[in-house]
Amino acid sequence: MLSPYREDSSTMAQSRDRLLVVGSVALDTIETPAGKREDVPGGSALYCSLAASLYVPVHVVGVIGEDFPEEPLRLLERRGVNLKGLQRVRGKTFRWSGRYHQDWIGRDTLDTQLNVFADFKPAIPRESTDCEVVFLANIQPQLQLDVLDAMTGPRLVALDTMNYWIKGDLPLLKKVLKRTDLLIINDEEARQLSGKYSLLKAAREIVAMGPKVVILKKGEHGCIVVAKDYMQLIPAYLLEDIEDPTGAGDTFAGGIMAVLTAHRGLSDAVLRNAVIHGTIMASFGVQGFGPERLNSLTVEEVETRKRQYLRWTRMTEAAGC
Amino acid sequence: MLSPYREDSSTMAQSRDRLLVVGSVALDTIETPAGKREDVPGGSALYCSLAASLYVPVHVVGVIGEDFPEEPLRLLERRGVNLKGLQRVRGKTFRWSGRYHQDWIGRDTLDTQLNVFADFKPAIPRESTDCEVVFLANIQPQLQLDVLDAMTGPRLVALDTMNYWIKGDLPLLKKVLKRTDLLIINDEEARQLSGKYSLLKAAREIVAMGPKVVILKKGEHGCIVVAKDYMQLIPAYLLEDIEDPTGAGDTFAGGIMAVLTAHRGLSDAVLRNAVIHGTIMASFGVQGFGPERLNSLTVEEVETRKRQYLRWTRMTEAAGC
Repeated sequence: MLSPYREDSSTMAQSRDRLLVVGSVALDTIETPAGKREDVPGGSALYCSLAASLYVPVHVVGVIGEDFPEEPLRLLERRGVNLKGLQRVRGKTFRWSGRYHQDWIGRDTLDTQLNVFADFKPAIPRESTDCEVVFLANIQPQLQLDVLDAMTGPRLVALDTMNYWIKGDLPLLKKVLKRTDLLIINDEEARQLSGKYSLLKAAREIVAMGPKVVILKKGEHGCIVVAKDYMQLIPAYLLEDIEDPTGAGDTFAGGIMAVLTAHRGLSDAVLRNAVIHGTIMASFGVQGFGPERLNSLTVEEVETRKRQYLRWTRMTEAAGC
Repeated sequence: MLSPYREDSSTMAQSRDRLLVVGSVALDTIETPAGKREDVPGGSALYCSLAASLYVPVHVVGVIGEDFPEEPLRLLERRGVNLKGLQRVRGKTFRWSGRYHQDWIGRDTLDTQLNVFADFKPAIPRESTDCEVVFLANIQPQLQLDVLDAMTGPRLVALDTMNYWIKGDLPLLKKVLKRTDLLIINDEEARQLSGKYSLLKAAREIVAMGPKVVILKKGEHGCIVVAKDYMQLIPAYLLEDIEDPTGAGDTFAGGIMAVLTAHRGLSDAVLRNAVIHGTIMASFGVQGFGPERLNSLTVEEVETRKRQYLRWTRMTEAAGC
């Protein structure tokens, strides 16, 4: 018999490696065609940690202000997330406010207040410096380099970035890329970083900059995974409705990082399973405002949806075995 | 051993059924970021026939003017296409002129001259009325109904349409849909036809209008196949470069129709193989201006690319068999 997905994520951990996530923690005010919410907990580090901590031990490094509520922190703790690197400092938490267009894709940023995030210097607690896997969410490239310098030698470094740093801080970003195993960025960022419009050319150009693997996110159209001698086309899970796309990319990354933390090595099979897992996690993420759907998500729900997804995407016939 | 694609298209024909294609034949003037060509043979019936005739017997019904060149007709004949239903009448051939944007997706129609296509009344030759499979490319719904009335009872009817008829001729189009097994339209047309923004809801709504299967085309992002108890997500083949997207949708349809003509029944496996085959055919189609790449395409080239595509899209592990 053919086993459609050989790694059962409910018993995912083969290693007890730990994932370090460094990024923003925010309070978002979000308006989508489905509604509006104010001061929703968010930020790349929060979404990524929530998704990954369902499966693997996570350490978070970030900063919050005095106004950040306790509840989301307690939830992370109940999932075993180590919050010693999450500094609470005087002032207000990073705030973002945005409105999504009717097509759910375009969005206008209405307001950004960096607040305590403006002076964020990641301080890695001693017990986190030997985490085996690192996800550097989208922050200033110099801070990403500082984090890597503080680590004792992770076996895998994954990176996100954004157009702002590609445009304004390219030399530093290129230094980070040389120390990166896996880059997760969206299609437009890949085009900007490579100067190539063709996504295949863009990905190959970026692989030449350092990362072994590049994952190009195409939102509701899925993603493309490119390595030197490897390519994978992964459709997104198709939903009837979505509530809020905020954090989808970081939730996707969190799902990927969970598999890459639980399984050592970047083999084709592990990589494919990681991206499938990220795809499923992101599909849940967009079904609630902010992180609310992730808060209640169970491993069983993930496995059920993954089986359905694998039926929808299978290209081969099981018969003939 | 697992056979990745069980039907070898090079020996595709299990039946000797014939495909009837009814649609436009045109002379296109095309400008893309890769260049410009004038008076390129085109039209839905031409692209679909070219793609399908590499595999199955095709009969074409359409109209051309006195100015349409002989060469593309001779090529179709060499592929065994029956051209008795392609009327040549006094006047000029349907002409379309368009310019694609730098993103290769948006395009401006610069000029449309219906010419002899304005008075097109499909006349099905006696020897074509018992074709087993029919593809009704995008023409006026009343003409599509006339074609179906002229047939002795095809086992499979597939349909394309466009926003113009959805907006202007909906009651007639709904009549055609009730007599359709397979609808192939793009995402925006599906939204317009169903009134639903969600593609999954749109597809389900359309299935309730008559077709057993709906294939929603998303251009370079692939397609979604929806039936009552079936769903398949199919990524597009990823190319380094394209030359000209004109006719991609009709080439895709031609590839699908070839498999559905060669293999009876709309089983999951046949449907999946059909859409994979259409995906590969369309990927070749956009690699040349107009139909030039399809003109020289060989079955071996298609099979080689299909094997590569199946490696890029496999979700399951062959091990364990």
